Amino acid sequence: MRHDPTGGQRPAYFGFQQPLAYRGPAFVPSAREPFAYRHYDKNRLVLGKSMQEQLRFAVCYWHSFGWAGTDPFGDPSFERPWHGAGEPMAQALHKADVAFDLFRLVDTPYFTFHDRDVAPEGASLAEFHTNLRRIGEVFARKMQDTGVRLLWGTANLFSHRRYMAGAATNPDPEVFSYAAAQVKNVLELTHELGGANYVLWGGREGYETLLNTDLKRELAQLGRFLQLVVEHKHKIGFKGQILIEPKPAEPTKHQYDRDVAAVFGFLREHGLEHEVKVNIEQNHALLAGQTFEHEIAMAQALGIFGSLDMNRGDELLGWDTDQFPNNLPQVALSLYEVLKGGGIGQGGLNFDAKLRRQSIDPDDLVWAHATAMDLCAQALLVAERMLQDGALQRHVQQRYAGWDGEAGRAILNGERSLEDLARDVAERGLDPRPRSAQQERLEHLVNSYL
Amino acid sequence: MRHDPTGGQRPAYFGFQQPLAYRGPAFVPSAREPFAYRHYDKNRLVLGKSMQEQLRFAVCYWHSFGWAGTDPFGDPSFERPWHGAGEPMAQALHKADVAFDLFRLVDTPYFTFHDRDVAPEGASLAEFHTNLRRIGEVFARKMQDTGVRLLWGTANLFSHRRYMAGAATNPDPEVFSYAAAQVKNVLELTHELGGANYVLWGGREGYETLLNTDLKRELAQLGRFLQLVVEHKHKIGFKGQILIEPKPAEPTKHQYDRDVAAVFGFLREHGLEHEVKVNIEQNHALLAGQTFEHEIAMAQALGIFGSLDMNRGDELLGWDTDQFPNNLPQVALSLYEVLKGGGIGQGGLNFDAKLRRQSIDPDDLVWAHATAMDLCAQALLVAERMLQDGALQRHVQQRYAGWDGEAGRAILNGERSLEDLARDVAERGLDPRPRSAQQERLEHLVNSYL
Amino acid sequence: MRHDPTGGQRPAYFGFQQPLAYRGPAFVPSAREPFAYRHYDKNRLVLGKSMQEQLRFAVCYWHSFGWAGTDPFGDPSFERPWHGAGEPMAQALHKADVAFDLFRLVDTPYFTFHDRDVAPEGASLAEFHTNLRRIGEVFARKMQDTGVRLLWGTANLFSHRRYMAGAATNPDPEVFSYAAAQVKNVLELTHELGGANYVLWGGREGYETLLNTDLKRELAQLGRFLQLVVEHKHKIGFKGQILIEPKPAEPTKHQYDRDVAAVFGFLREHGLEHEVKVNIEQNHALLAGQTFEHEIAMAQALGIFGSLDMNRGDELLGWDTDQFPNNLPQVALSLYEVLKGGGIGQGGLNFDAKLRRQSIDPDDLVWAHATAMDLCAQALLVAERMLQDGALQRHVQQRYAGWDGEAGRAILNGERSLEDLARDVAERGLDPRPRSAQQERLEHLVNSYL
Amino acid sequence: MRHDPTGGQRPAYFGFQQPLAYRGPAFVPSAREPFAYRHYDKNRLVLGKSMQEQLRFAVCYWHSFGWAGTDPFGDPSFERPWHGAGEPMAQALHKADVAFDLFRLVDTPYFTFHDRDVAPEGASLAEFHTNLRRIGEVFARKMQDTGVRLLWGTANLFSHRRYMAGAATNPDPEVFSYAAAQVKNVLELTHELGGANYVLWGGREGYETLLNTDLKRELAQLGRFLQLVVEHKHKIGFKGQILIEPKPAEPTKHQYDRDVAAVFGFLREHGLEHEVKVNIEQNHALLAGQTFEHEIAMAQALGIFGSLDMNRGDELLGWDTDQFPNNLPQVALSLYEVLKGGGIGQGGLNFDAKLRRQSIDPDDLVWAHATAMDLCAQALLVAERMLQDGALQRHVQQRYAGWDGEAGRAILNGERSLEDLARDVAERGLDPRPRSAQQERLEHLVNSYL
Repeated sequence: MRHDPTGGQRPAYFGFQQPLAYRGPAFVPSAREPFAYRHYDKNRLVLGKSMQEQLRFAVCYWHSFGWAGTDPFGDPSFERPWHGAGEPMAQALHKADVAFDLFRLVDTPYFTFHDRDVAPEGASLAEFHTNLRRIGEVFARKMQDTGVRLLWGTANLFSHRRYMAGAATNPDPEVFSYAAAQVKNVLELTHELGGANYVLWGGREGYETLLNTDLKRELAQLGRFLQLVVEHKHKIGFKGQILIEPKPAEPTKHQYDRDVAAVFGFLREHGLEHEVKVNIEQNHALLAGQTFEHEIAMAQALGIFGSLDMNRGDELLGWDTDQFPNNLPQVALSLYEVLKGGGIGQGGLNFDAKLRRQSIDPDDLVWAHATAMDLCAQALLVAERMLQDGALQRHVQQRYAGWDGEAGRAILNGERSLEDLARDVAERGLDPRPRSAQQERLEHLVNSYL
Repeated sequence: MRHDPTGGQRPAYFGFQQPLAYRGPAFVPSAREPFAYRHYDKNRLVLGKSMQEQLRFAVCYWHSFGWAGTDPFGDPSFERPWHGAGEPMAQALHKADVAFDLFRLVDTPYFTFHDRDVAPEGASLAEFHTNLRRIGEVFARKMQDTGVRLLWGTANLFSHRRYMAGAATNPDPEVFSYAAAQVKNVLELTHELGGANYVLWGGREGYETLLNTDLKRELAQLGRFLQLVVEHKHKIGFKGQILIEPKPAEPTKHQYDRDVAAVFGFLREHGLEHEVKVNIEQNHALLAGQTFEHEIAMAQALGIFGSLDMNRGDELLGWDTDQFPNNLPQVALSLYEVLKGGGIGQGGLNFDAKLRRQSIDPDDLVWAHATAMDLCAQALLVAERMLQDGALQRHVQQRYAGWDGEAGRAILNGERSLEDLARDVAERGLDPRPRSAQQERLEHLVNSYL
Repeated sequence: MRHDPTGGQRPAYFGFQQPLAYRGPAFVPSAREPFAYRHYDKNRLVLGKSMQEQLRFAVCYWHSFGWAGTDPFGDPSFERPWHGAGEPMAQALHKADVAFDLFRLVDTPYFTFHDRDVAPEGASLAEFHTNLRRIGEVFARKMQDTGVRLLWGTANLFSHRRYMAGAATNPDPEVFSYAAAQVKNVLELTHELGGANYVLWGGREGYETLLNTDLKRELAQLGRFLQLVVEHKHKIGFKGQILIEPKPAEPTKHQYDRDVAAVFGFLREHGLEHEVKVNIEQNHALLAGQTFEHEIAMAQALGIFGSLDMNRGDELLGWDTDQFPNNLPQVALSLYEVLKGGGIGQGGLNFDAKLRRQSIDPDDLVWAHATAMDLCAQALLVAERMLQDGALQRHVQQRYAGWDGEAGRAILNGERSLEDLARDVAERGLDPRPRSAQQERLEHLVNSYL
Repeated sequence: MRHDPTGGQRPAYFGFQQPLAYRGPAFVPSAREPFAYRHYDKNRLVLGKSMQEQLRFAVCYWHSFGWAGTDPFGDPSFERPWHGAGEPMAQALHKADVAFDLFRLVDTPYFTFHDRDVAPEGASLAEFHTNLRRIGEVFARKMQDTGVRLLWGTANLFSHRRYMAGAATNPDPEVFSYAAAQVKNVLELTHELGGANYVLWGGREGYETLLNTDLKRELAQLGRFLQLVVEHKHKIGFKGQILIEPKPAEPTKHQYDRDVAAVFGFLREHGLEHEVKVNIEQNHALLAGQTFEHEIAMAQALGIFGSLDMNRGDELLGWDTDQFPNNLPQVALSLYEVLKGGGIGQGGLNFDAKLRRQSIDPDDLVWAHATAMDLCAQALLVAERMLQDGALQRHVQQRYAGWDGEAGRAILNGERSLEDLARDVAERGLDPRPRSAQQERLEHLVNSYL
């Protein structure tokens, strides 16, 4: 008999009934046990922390329970029971039951949500707020029962037509106020549920055409909005991180939070570089023409690394495909950057990933999450080997060793002028010789850790 | 008989002999006069300034006189006489004669150069410097004779193999020093020649692979380098602008000066946002996934708009094609942004554009520049009409009018908290209604000015 | 009082009441007449045909009346009355009334539709068919009343979840049969309505991953499907063209009908190169990395040019934005290719273009179509000048003149072997000299016709 | 003491002296033996053939010995001795010695070349031919001595300025003849050296702008050229494959041999689909918006799969980076397609890959090739497991099983009309239900073979 999370009122949604187990690399699937973790041994220590805490996986609500399997040319394909006809709050509760059942089956420690994913919007913001508080109570109880925690919450400021021209950057200040009120609700709920972070993704904070846009005004509006959120965070005592999620475009033509470097300039301009960090997504990086590793390394260098949306895009397609990660060397290189920079901290690895529209079996949700978790765990072990071996880091240190010398330090400390340096070149007849950068050897070195 | 700029020593390079004239829109080409300006009437007043001063055209040395018509799969196609066998300084003088003859023929008020474009590098930096000073004297005389001025100078810190791993961001501090000495030379020459700007393009200031790169160190090195240049500028009393030229990649995998937003963050981090501006190129913007208009508007909004490299890329190709501009509506929209933001100022429109490799006739150089100048002039007149009519600007002002009201101002002035706004939404039962953004109508409005 | 197309039963949907008039280039908008055609003078002769017949504009049903203003991150924004609650067939009739009112207002001679755009699907294919026939009768009457004709019909084989893995290329032959039945219905309706063409767009005829795909089987299925359609066309005596619409991806990862060259190979493989032509879309060409002009010229060279979907994509975005055309030089170059190849023939210029999601006023539909029609008319006049002047064509003929000589003809006629040519090179000591390809001059020449 | 391939006349170029050995997966590098093959055990049987014969690796001459380390913004960085001043034929012999020493060190069974890579062009085609024959004799002797064979030869029809407007597609028939003579020379040399294939890459067979191009003429010229080559192949009795190498652009704006599907259509049009096959390159596929696996599978489905250029591009850069392959899962999926389709046959895996410009040590050439060979061998073993296990293939067969039934076969055999199918749908009330396509599970299955 299947496990029934609803206390007998409705059939279990998934064919999987028991939580997936760790069986080690030699596991062989069978009809009885078609899947077990080969690498994700959650209590195994990796660089002094458990795998679970190094990875801090989260399942996201929107793709897995909200999205119905549509695409720009296609109707819903999934036919989730809670998307059919029904009383909205009952549907939301049904959805929550299935969600927590998935968390249980794949054994994920965290989840993430938008307000709109979890509760019916009702006819007004007040009604939405009421629904949200009610779901919040259900969540609190389920979280207590299961030990699952909230990685982050966020407010959906992009789907409703009122936000079609932006939320913070809307030409109408009333929309700004409406968005502010909505964020206040979700920030407070996130705080109450013990969320580790609060995320802002500015999906409509940009423009469709410069012809009708006052870019300078919009940047000022966006800066003020973000300051308001930070001020309120401190007021209510929320200790989580405030995170911006960069993305260059889609749905709009241009979004201001394009990539890590752009977000950093914006934060500095508004005095927020110590208050706000970034939630980096692989697919968003790709759309911005950046590698995931680059964005992670850049955020660390600038001191604003916060968390990860762990998915993958298709390099040959120009939109956000949000696929589950599956390329071992790529994920390993990303996690190597994370570990090298000190780890994921308060952040986590949120699977902002969706099933392919044709994966219409309920169990596809289980398979997708579990296989992605196992792949990330395998990649973490590769990254651990890269760090522990240390050959890569030694190579880099030796390459820049000159800068640790007296001359190098004097330059960076501001003790040399352009004239000093020119004189030095002339007097010493400097004619520096390049050295091989050995990229092919280093790429091979990385592969040797697989 | 052809005009001979060399005083009889060598044949004229171009078939055109007389400077191209302005003949007005009704001009009809003939065998005697195959080209005349239809729109570029340099003394015509546009918004209170002469066309010449609104546009400040410059011919660039590298593409037009330095480049031999190679591509990654092709040998030189141009066979310029100064690229054949010969004594390097004599070749450089030959090149300079032809260059100033082109300036005369198309009547361009400015030119631009890298050190390496104009003078032989010789066997050492000292020798290069000597050659450069000697060419500088030739330039000074020619500039005096012709009235042509220097829009900007720059040092080539990317072609020689010593810079293969970067100049300022090189792992070897001796390369940093070498680059510093080279910049000092060119900055001083630019100053002496009365240059209006000095440009830094960080073609190698990036990386090929993160595996051998210490990104944080490199950013610090780049910041210090730029500070050194600014300090020296002030020391020698150079009044021109220091400009960074954003580009995301090519030749390297990743360049730090990716786009305007990235450069701004970098400048703020190093305290240079009031000292350094940007030289924006259409093709570089395109490679960064940005429109030219966006980059111009963003630079103006951030207060770092400096100058333009006026060319065009091919949207379907992934490299810097550096074609001459030729799409009237696109150029008009760019110049509209420039004029709306107060004009080109100390900057100019530098044709960082090259002939197609198959355009091997000397006169193709004349045609390419003259037709591009005329197109820009025509676009300027369109932009003038857009501004003078004012319909676009009125539309934008009305769209954001709410922000000029009391509530909007209070939000931006910091007089409202998140709670205030939430209370306001609740008390007034706000449910803002979106208005049409009318993009299609505005696009038609723009076309109506053509 | 507004015009009421419903005979008084419901209010007019558009603010515009009178059909838009042609007023010539000097037209100045006013509050009373905010828009009139400046260039689209439908009876003006262009190269021996009326403008109306040279352009054969069509309004498409799906974007303008079916689409509700959603995007992948956004809810409906348009709130068309026929999208609200209501009896499906009544909604469909309401939609048809508004559609024909738009045709009347902008004075478009043609329209296009998918089955699903115009009639409710009902609970079965039989019911769908019945609904479709009923709407067909309504259309027939309205077409008779207004003179508006059908440019093409098509069956939607991509939205319903049954087609999620393809229609003709589905792994399940029952889906193939279902699709065949659906096409039969629409092809016959198109025939009865006097449609000039029937279109197949293979939006799902491709794959998401090769891992679950038998590419060779799917190509065979697709070939047979197309043959079936052609066979049925002849059986029922339909004289319209059968058109394939190339697109490389979106919604799927890969679509077989990638671009004109790929479609041609497929047609030849299945013996259909004289039976089927292509309907080329600007935005699809762009997504395939091709220019619109290239696809037109290639289709003409291969003898399969059929019709155009006239829209524009955004070169910086990676999805089908389907914007209304608005760049005069680009549209002029496309129409130049069309005219040069003999004109649009039985095809037409279908505005497969949609409003921006923020253009929520009913009148935005009028503005978008009317301004696009006027732009195309203006571009047609430019293309006419290019052809009549003939300078471009003369340039091309002279460039290839060598191939019209004896030696050139002998090569192409198969009268020379590789040995013959090698001997000729040796004996004559051939060392051919390249000539300038004059691209910049030709681009200027094109601009001079604007 | 180093091995000296020159018989004592000059120092060995590489630091490596002994051919690299196979040591198995447990190999640990040391100062004495920094590299050994962990996977490339050339005589190991894989699916009934030796690894060496399954992979048929080739080193290419142009990138590894011809290219000097330039890029569009950079001077040569490599300083190969044979690129300095010197007598051209002596330099060519020096280059050949080093090339064959590299083949020996990495133990590659094949090499590939363009005429221009190996012999000086001299002052005329006759002189070039003489030089080529002389080098051919040197090659023949070295090949006999070492057992290294020729995978393919090709003529460079794109670097010299005479080919700037194309070779076969040149507007000047004399250039066509010149190219024909050049191909004749190289095809015959390839034949005499026992080459397994002859390749044509149409790097200039396309256009820069349609404005000066007669596309239809050029396609006819290209078709005739290819027929001439095939006719000559048969005349001289060459048994190798004639291969076209698709690429969409670069150096030109558009190349006719865009991708496999485009080449197939072209071959069919000219009656060459049984005479000519394709040499597919990963980076070219990428530039065409295709995956490597797709192009392989498509070529197999169309019966024109020939050989592979095994390299990798950078998905975020828009030009041909030609990097050595290094992503294990990607290479495994490509080789899985190759094996599934029957193997590489007469083709091979040619490393059309170049060092990064900063890899300036001679030994970087050894490292790059050896590590790429080992990665491909590792990937081959993964692909072997995928095939032998058979789970993927079974999944695909089951998915399409309906087409093996009577109804499916009848459709494909042409025994059903559109009417038959429509009647069948109606009578049986067909309403096919979709099944999950299980993409995530299949991706996990692939990873489980790593």
